[in-house]
Amino acid sequence: MAALAAALRAAHLDGLLITSLPNIRYLTGFSGSSAMVVVSERDLLLVTDFRYATQVQEEVGDLARVAIEAQSLWTGVWRQMADMTGLDVVGFESAYLVHRDFERLLNAGARWQWRATTDLVETLREQKDAGEIESIASAARVAERALERTLAGVRAGQTELEIAGALELALRDAGSTGFPFETIVASGERSALPHARAGTRQVRAGDFLLIDFGAIVDGYCSDITRTVIVGRATPEQRDVHDIVRTANERASALVRAGMTGKDADALARRYIEERGWGEAFGHSLGHGIGIEVHEAPRLARTTEAVLPERAVVTIEPGVYRAGWGGVRVEDDVVLGRDSATILTTFSRELLEVG
Amino acid sequence: MAALAAALRAAHLDGLLITSLPNIRYLTGFSGSSAMVVVSERDLLLVTDFRYATQVQEEVGDLARVAIEAQSLWTGVWRQMADMTGLDVVGFESAYLVHRDFERLLNAGARWQWRATTDLVETLREQKDAGEIESIASAARVAERALERTLAGVRAGQTELEIAGALELALRDAGSTGFPFETIVASGERSALPHARAGTRQVRAGDFLLIDFGAIVDGYCSDITRTVIVGRATPEQRDVHDIVRTANERASALVRAGMTGKDADALARRYIEERGWGEAFGHSLGHGIGIEVHEAPRLARTTEAVLPERAVVTIEPGVYRAGWGGVRVEDDVVLGRDSATILTTFSRELLEVG
Repeated sequence: MAALAAALRAAHLDGLLITSLPNIRYLTGFSGSSAMVVVSERDLLLVTDFRYATQVQEEVGDLARVAIEAQSLWTGVWRQMADMTGLDVVGFESAYLVHRDFERLLNAGARWQWRATTDLVETLREQKDAGEIESIASAARVAERALERTLAGVRAGQTELEIAGALELALRDAGSTGFPFETIVASGERSALPHARAGTRQVRAGDFLLIDFGAIVDGYCSDITRTVIVGRATPEQRDVHDIVRTANERASALVRAGMTGKDADALARRYIEERGWGEAFGHSLGHGIGIEVHEAPRLARTTEAVLPERAVVTIEPGVYRAGWGGVRVEDDVVLGRDSATILTTFSRELLEVG
Repeated sequence: MAALAAALRAAHLDGLLITSLPNIRYLTGFSGSSAMVVVSERDLLLVTDFRYATQVQEEVGDLARVAIEAQSLWTGVWRQMADMTGLDVVGFESAYLVHRDFERLLNAGARWQWRATTDLVETLREQKDAGEIESIASAARVAERALERTLAGVRAGQTELEIAGALELALRDAGSTGFPFETIVASGERSALPHARAGTRQVRAGDFLLIDFGAIVDGYCSDITRTVIVGRATPEQRDVHDIVRTANERASALVRAGMTGKDADALARRYIEERGWGEAFGHSLGHGIGIEVHEAPRLARTTEAVLPERAVVTIEPGVYRAGWGGVRVEDDVVLGRDSATILTTFSRELLEVG
């Protein structure tokens, strides 16, 4: 709260209307799907609806004042804001307020002066505290236990969906409260699709099997990818996997707070380019994880911003060859000034399963 | 497309910029997470990024022209729009364009005249065709098979999360390609929280066990709730369940296209009020389902809009008593002029499990 109050002062704002649910969760602990927050230097107000009356008490405690609305959250926001003193110039989240609601600010909210803001809370979220890092580390351990159990059961003839089902059950059993994104299980030539979902394809001996998934623990996400072989790997499969694994290990070992996102991306990209596969690594190296599975900072060719200390980011180089297959190896890493701590410990060797 | 072209003419628009992913999926079949569509009377253009180059070919076929962008989708949209003739007054989706992107329209897109629109595509989506209804019916059958298998395995001592895990595995095995929303498994007094997630609470003999979940088949969702008893039900539990079940059955039998959403809501609400539990039914009766698990139309106390034919909606009355427990019984129903077809066939009796 002190950091947010300082950010408001720096932006010459008396207050901020927060409509991003992950930002609301970060500031108040509330995890429901319907809420708005108004923050001023002295006050943190959360408006939600009656469905969450019990949950909000449990989750928020005395971190925020809570108002429960029977009908529209906006009605509650206007009423509560009218009672808050010293509120004149108020920011809103430009990336999390749709045009329809922006019009409400100009109409029902016309008595306040509105200023578009970006990333005020997101910037605070980049640097994790010890408790947040421990939650992400727990989510990584849960994901790895689930992966180990799942790979032990993989057999040729199973569909990608069956493998995804086994993985999700294992995640639940290991203690994940949900799935941060739709589990990717892509086999054979489908592993060349960087965003394939699990489908009805049956895995066959000789297939790459790419599994990209995560766990949620205490509201924080992990995000991990391993690519294995069903049966025995060919030398060509080993070569491509070795390039990606080496790119991953180099980047994880060398990435630091204080670098730009672009320089971090280059740690893996240069190596893949040197090995002749630069064109086949079409996405960026990684992204922050936390309450959201994609959050700031970014590790990408176009990112000039400097990576902050205690950000937790993914390191996920990949090589994709349409019609043949793809390999991605993804870990979660905490950035320090002089070192990086890898939270994911699952083997990066090319495993042969089934 | 003909219906959309007519809607554009009626709104005096030369074209429409579509940023809602479910609307994009409806119009083009594309299910990726990064796309924009520009539609005019003669043209349907989809812009996505390189990650989806293969997937977009498979899914869209010749339903739309496709442009693949290496960097920002917006760059692609401006370039493509500049090449489209007769495009002057262009609508955008007010409920699906954040303020930050609205500013892009006013700056980089200043050569076009922009008009805020609402619900142009959503209205088309309300009335399902035979193929869409069959997909939702399949998703309902998949959900029911998974529920049957899951309830057969429930035992006192399991946690809600373990039950959710078993349900999700059963959903995958039955053919669901994903989960339309976070599975709700709420036991004992937690069943009184209308939006409880699954948690670490162990179910005990005598508990209500409320399970609210769905399946996805061919991109379409089902949404079903059953509340059962672990062990033996008390007369009081039977009474409350009977009220909710009767409210559900009355509403499902009597709901029709041509009613207002408000009148439909009243079909269940009046009965629950007569039985003395009106205050305990705090949410609305139902909502449309389709590509999204919450879409138009709404069946709520405040909805004056008339329900269209061939909408598929949920009927989900509930009674919640804080500290004691709650009951919800939810079905999926296709609206006709003279009848309603209930897609969900799972028993609505108070089952005793474990």
